[in-house]
Amino acid sequence: MSSTTVALTELIAALGGDLLGGSEVRIARIAPLDEADGDCISFLANPRYQAQLGTTRAGCVIVAPAFAEAAAARGAAIVTPDPYLYFARLTQWWAARTRPAASVGVHPSAIVSPEATLGRDVEIGPLAVVEAGAVIGDRARIGAHCVVERDAQVGEGTRLAPRVVLGYGCRIGARGLVHSGVVIGADGFGLAPSKQGYVKIEQLGNVSIGDDVEIGANTCIDRGALADTVIEDGVKLDNLIQIAHNVHIGKNTAMAGCAAVAGSTRIGANCTIGGAANIIGHLTLVDGVHISAATTVTRSIAEPGVYSGPHPFEENSSWQKNAATLRQLHTLRERVRALEKK
Amino acid sequence: MSSTTVALTELIAALGGDLLGGSEVRIARIAPLDEADGDCISFLANPRYQAQLGTTRAGCVIVAPAFAEAAAARGAAIVTPDPYLYFARLTQWWAARTRPAASVGVHPSAIVSPEATLGRDVEIGPLAVVEAGAVIGDRARIGAHCVVERDAQVGEGTRLAPRVVLGYGCRIGARGLVHSGVVIGADGFGLAPSKQGYVKIEQLGNVSIGDDVEIGANTCIDRGALADTVIEDGVKLDNLIQIAHNVHIGKNTAMAGCAAVAGSTRIGANCTIGGAANIIGHLTLVDGVHISAATTVTRSIAEPGVYSGPHPFEENSSWQKNAATLRQLHTLRERVRALEKK
Amino acid sequence: MSSTTVALTELIAALGGDLLGGSEVRIARIAPLDEADGDCISFLANPRYQAQLGTTRAGCVIVAPAFAEAAAARGAAIVTPDPYLYFARLTQWWAARTRPAASVGVHPSAIVSPEATLGRDVEIGPLAVVEAGAVIGDRARIGAHCVVERDAQVGEGTRLAPRVVLGYGCRIGARGLVHSGVVIGADGFGLAPSKQGYVKIEQLGNVSIGDDVEIGANTCIDRGALADTVIEDGVKLDNLIQIAHNVHIGKNTAMAGCAAVAGSTRIGANCTIGGAANIIGHLTLVDGVHISAATTVTRSIAEPGVYSGPHPFEENSSWQKNAATLRQLHTLRERVRALEKK
Repeated sequence: MSSTTVALTELIAALGGDLLGGSEVRIARIAPLDEADGDCISFLANPRYQAQLGTTRAGCVIVAPAFAEAAAARGAAIVTPDPYLYFARLTQWWAARTRPAASVGVHPSAIVSPEATLGRDVEIGPLAVVEAGAVIGDRARIGAHCVVERDAQVGEGTRLAPRVVLGYGCRIGARGLVHSGVVIGADGFGLAPSKQGYVKIEQLGNVSIGDDVEIGANTCIDRGALADTVIEDGVKLDNLIQIAHNVHIGKNTAMAGCAAVAGSTRIGANCTIGGAANIIGHLTLVDGVHISAATTVTRSIAEPGVYSGPHPFEENSSWQKNAATLRQLHTLRERVRALEKK
Repeated sequence: MSSTTVALTELIAALGGDLLGGSEVRIARIAPLDEADGDCISFLANPRYQAQLGTTRAGCVIVAPAFAEAAAARGAAIVTPDPYLYFARLTQWWAARTRPAASVGVHPSAIVSPEATLGRDVEIGPLAVVEAGAVIGDRARIGAHCVVERDAQVGEGTRLAPRVVLGYGCRIGARGLVHSGVVIGADGFGLAPSKQGYVKIEQLGNVSIGDDVEIGANTCIDRGALADTVIEDGVKLDNLIQIAHNVHIGKNTAMAGCAAVAGSTRIGANCTIGGAANIIGHLTLVDGVHISAATTVTRSIAEPGVYSGPHPFEENSSWQKNAATLRQLHTLRERVRALEKK
Repeated sequence: MSSTTVALTELIAALGGDLLGGSEVRIARIAPLDEADGDCISFLANPRYQAQLGTTRAGCVIVAPAFAEAAAARGAAIVTPDPYLYFARLTQWWAARTRPAASVGVHPSAIVSPEATLGRDVEIGPLAVVEAGAVIGDRARIGAHCVVERDAQVGEGTRLAPRVVLGYGCRIGARGLVHSGVVIGADGFGLAPSKQGYVKIEQLGNVSIGDDVEIGANTCIDRGALADTVIEDGVKLDNLIQIAHNVHIGKNTAMAGCAAVAGSTRIGANCTIGGAANIIGHLTLVDGVHISAATTVTRSIAEPGVYSGPHPFEENSSWQKNAATLRQLHTLRERVRALEKK
């Protein structure tokens, strides 16, 4: 990060908000309330941490109007209706200020087909491969060691981190961010049993990804069997997620790390899927469904709401007794029924 | 995909089956019954979807003899004993017809050791690395950015998609397909505790993979500690699967995405392991075992059959009550026992 | 592996231990007791396998003093206080003896910034990319297709297997081993909701990894949001593990394959986390906690010990009945309570 500091007034000019005091304060870092020093800017997003306002050493705190007075009593404050959103925009502004500018152009070691189409101001990194028919939008950035296969499309301003595979015929829209190790467009898992073993069902669909989508490291999104696998605009996927063939994920749905969605399942818009949750195939989840971490979803969900399922953990000897009893649970219910009849 | 259409007669000539009507019909796409248009061929594999025969607009439907009459009543039909298998073969024929032919030869940017052995008509993609002692079988295809380490072997006609690592001394047989991001032959997780922390157990075995094996994106198969990790002929592994050292997977077993098998476990032939299922180490599962999705297998299984274990999910407030009670399940059983004794 | 054999006397000279008999024995392989032939060395680490001492055909067995007599009665033996640790060191000695020496130098196809700093005797493999500001320690080995981004640091003697991404500003200490496909320093999953969809929180921290750390294939360790994600000395991570932003893992903790740790969780020293276990965010686990495989940890753990949680698996029809009853468990408890009150 840059070693130079920023005046709060400069920050306000860029991001808005009401500055209370602190016109002389300069900021070197962004930090949580409990780790901040005098040259840090911090934020209070969750009222649960309100008490930290009294103890933090932060040079400036971003707060909601309800906390403006308390914050100003201790030092500089920026008042804004949604401090967490303000913080998010601050990180973006900070990153733009401190990170090296993208280098535009095609690295001489990249292997770009003369039949590929490159937009204006694209960056193609070292040793990247861009095949015939691929279309790279304006200002898109293709990292080192990426492979953009034939007829694949990368939208305007989308960035592929180093070592991403975008399979033939697949496309991602504008302003996306795809992290290292992601594989888009491997074959879906389609097999027909036969007497001689499984016969492969060639996967003839593609993957279609909308705008403003982020995809975490080593996540896999398989191509569809006949139609496409679809990821709508604004979807955010964390690391090591498995999206099987013909899954459809609705707008602005977010999934945490290690989640898995089996084939042909349809997830609505504005859902959240917790880490390590998994959803079996051929289900439908409506908009606004929230699945807790480590839950296995085995039926369609027709009502918005929060659904949970991780088996409770315990100290081991206690778990052993309870788990053993669980195997007799149905019998236990029958015994209770018998007692009730007496 | 190709924009040209195919006559049903041409399709029958290639794949067999009995054509009822439709000698004039031309096909542009393969589609499910409920998404098909007049230029589509579709199939009825699961009798559950029988009603769709009456509503589909497909130009031709592949059916079993029992549905021949119903299908022919509405338009062209192909009658065959196993429509799903026919569909699988159709996708293969379709893919061969519409995908660009493999380009044979070694890309000038690939780095192939003069001490590697290349078979006839191999393809070595851009920026692939093939080390000394490696043997690449006839018609094998090594994708862009693959690394085939020293003394590794790739069988005839096997294809490594872009960015696969095949570790030193490991081998895969003929007609295999390995998707992007797969790592074959990383070290197994072998550690001996000591007062100074863990001491690494060097993994001296290899990975041995049979013929007709498919391995999904970002799946990992570790090398054995002393002997080899073994994947037998016809095994199909989906994406993001973990196969630990010295696992042995029997012939024609299939595992869905995110499954994990811990060290030295032995899985029989013709098993299916559901998505996100995991099997702890040092177990034996006999042939013909079917593990449901998200099941944790903690004991050996000596009888073929279906085994399940995902904890049921529920609406969150209901789950909270049941999960809390679960922690007292053993006590609850004691209470029932006490009541019974009264 | 080398085809030449080793005299037991040579092995003792290198690794210590007391040799009983066998001064003429030569060893060709290391093997488990039940798979060993006369030219193999084997070991008895777990007294549970004691009976195999009577049946093994191994040319030499490594044993603890308690088994010296029994082992010597059947052939050559090496006596040492900790046979498993001796075995670990033997594998290291064996690997050093039989594996090709690292080739020192920068492969001509590697792309190394003139502004990177390379230590003495480093190896930079084919097509690796090392960006400006990166520092590669003495004797470090950067495998083929690795990307070491700007200002990243690799400690002395650390080895990156082919195809590792070490993100900008991230560092790993000395004597580490990072397997293929690992992504260190992808963005943590930070999002602020807004009316226009999620707004990205740029991840401004790095990843800081200590000495003697091993990281398995395709594992992901995200960079911190503000401060760093921290992996302390001696930590061992298996394959396909997810470490989210700002996680802190204490010294000498080991995690098996497919484990996942959500954001800001702090795990103590000398813990073990079983395969496919997952730990939700913002928790604290003290030193010496052992989590069984496939356990979901949903609360902080303040006491060392063993904690477990996988839902028991069963034959499917039995599981169906028990799982259905589980959804009424709270009600069942109420019914028992009612019976008790009578």
